[in-house]
Amino acid sequence: MAIYQRRVEFAETDAAGMVHFSMFFRYMEEAEHAVWRSAGMDIYANHEERSWPRISASFDFKAPLRFQDEFEVRTAIAAVTRSTIRWQHTLRRGDTIIGSGTITAVYVSKSAGGGMKSTAIPPEIISRLQAAASAA
Amino acid sequence: MAIYQRRVEFAETDAAGMVHFSMFFRYMEEAEHAVWRSAGMDIYANHEERSWPRISASFDFKAPLRFQDEFEVRTAIAAVTRSTIRWQHTLRRGDTIIGSGTITAVYVSKSAGGGMKSTAIPPEIISRLQAAASAA
Amino acid sequence: MAIYQRRVEFAETDAAGMVHFSMFFRYMEEAEHAVWRSAGMDIYANHEERSWPRISASFDFKAPLRFQDEFEVRTAIAAVTRSTIRWQHTLRRGDTIIGSGTITAVYVSKSAGGGMKSTAIPPEIISRLQAAASAA
Amino acid sequence: MAIYQRRVEFAETDAAGMVHFSMFFRYMEEAEHAVWRSAGMDIYANHEERSWPRISASFDFKAPLRFQDEFEVRTAIAAVTRSTIRWQHTLRRGDTIIGSGTITAVYVSKSAGGGMKSTAIPPEIISRLQAAASAA
Repeated sequence: MAIYQRRVEFAETDAAGMVHFSMFFRYMEEAEHAVWRSAGMDIYANHEERSWPRISASFDFKAPLRFQDEFEVRTAIAAVTRSTIRWQHTLRRGDTIIGSGTITAVYVSKSAGGGMKSTAIPPEIISRLQAAASAA
Repeated sequence: MAIYQRRVEFAETDAAGMVHFSMFFRYMEEAEHAVWRSAGMDIYANHEERSWPRISASFDFKAPLRFQDEFEVRTAIAAVTRSTIRWQHTLRRGDTIIGSGTITAVYVSKSAGGGMKSTAIPPEIISRLQAAASAA
Repeated sequence: MAIYQRRVEFAETDAAGMVHFSMFFRYMEEAEHAVWRSAGMDIYANHEERSWPRISASFDFKAPLRFQDEFEVRTAIAAVTRSTIRWQHTLRRGDTIIGSGTITAVYVSKSAGGGMKSTAIPPEIISRLQAAASAA
Repeated sequence: MAIYQRRVEFAETDAAGMVHFSMFFRYMEEAEHAVWRSAGMDIYANHEERSWPRISASFDFKAPLRFQDEFEVRTAIAAVTRSTIRWQHTLRRGDTIIGSGTITAVYVSKSAGGGMKSTAIPPEIISRLQAAASAA
């Protein structure tokens, strides 16, 4: 399980005094991108031709995060299909579970006109991501 | 079904040339708050004592939005419990379905120390929101 | 002087209970883009080859904006050079001046490698923007 | 001169393929808050009664930042008055200067009704911030 560490910045809070709920989707994406980097890959490489748009995302909120809280995102790969990866993330502040969620990304090839078509994920990408996501 | 109209602003896009996926959660929340206003209520009233934190959120992405696209959010109440409301939102750009999602909010009372406890939603709030959300 | 109207959304606030100061730069940009549209032009047209990056931005804050406040941005063109436009914006909530600022954008041509070179603004663009920005 | 290190996250980019200009104001604020922490203080302490709203902010953009770029913010205190601190920030990616800017914050006391009144900054706060901002 990969671990990504982060501190809450002020602009991420809202007038309820806690992190705005939409930010948790950004934290999950940051953690995913960190797994790509720890796997020695760049999710944005060759982005004119290949890309990883998100097709679904969900989060269950258990406890709030507040300004300057330090927390971690624990990330694993929950499922893989021919062209999708479903990432599973759990956020913790110390022993407190903040919440957990999933993001499913699809591997697409892009045409010149802006079209996107799902395409098979190369096995090496999967194996490298799985190795990085299951590292201690 | 309430309808909220919006245009994509530049800061909402990302380097893939489309709206960042986290923004859709903000669009859904904006649409919910518009329903509150059309019901003649303010979700933020008395916010020191009562509040509506989100306990779960999900979105399924079908087609991208791009800078300056005009779109609408169609909002309905999908479920009500003693202390929660589940909002259902569908985004469209013309006849194209951009995606759909849900946000569940819980009604809480806040203690001086920052604690939050779920509490029964007053029936009048439910009836006014349902009337506003089902208006043409 | 062009006028752009807006309401404060919840995600734009911070834990001080007011709009985060970085948002004012987004509001100014939104107002500028609205002038482009009212001039019948699209600042993002041909964006692979031409673009309008910002080279300086400033804002002086006089009074806070809070969630759901309705405000307006009054926009004018303060200065034009061969390749830059300096936009001047003042935000008001009713009779209260919220603050004012400037954004200077430069017209650039982009090379395939990602380089950017300032280039002369076509006179028609200037005249159309000036007409739109000085409309009642 | 204090140094704050950061990586560009995907949600911070825009459809021009670079970091949105408004983000630089957030990066500057993050760097300022890091100075507070390295001085052993919390800018948000006692925030119900005392606060540090921003009264002016400016930035000059020299070169773009892109997704996953690693950069640093070098922060110094440019000026101090009875109730204000003007922070000076320069962003660099390696040897490339990305830009520089200032943020002026005012120390205020808050009244129960939401009013804010500038107030004298305690000398110890100034001396501790200056020590932290001038550390190697």
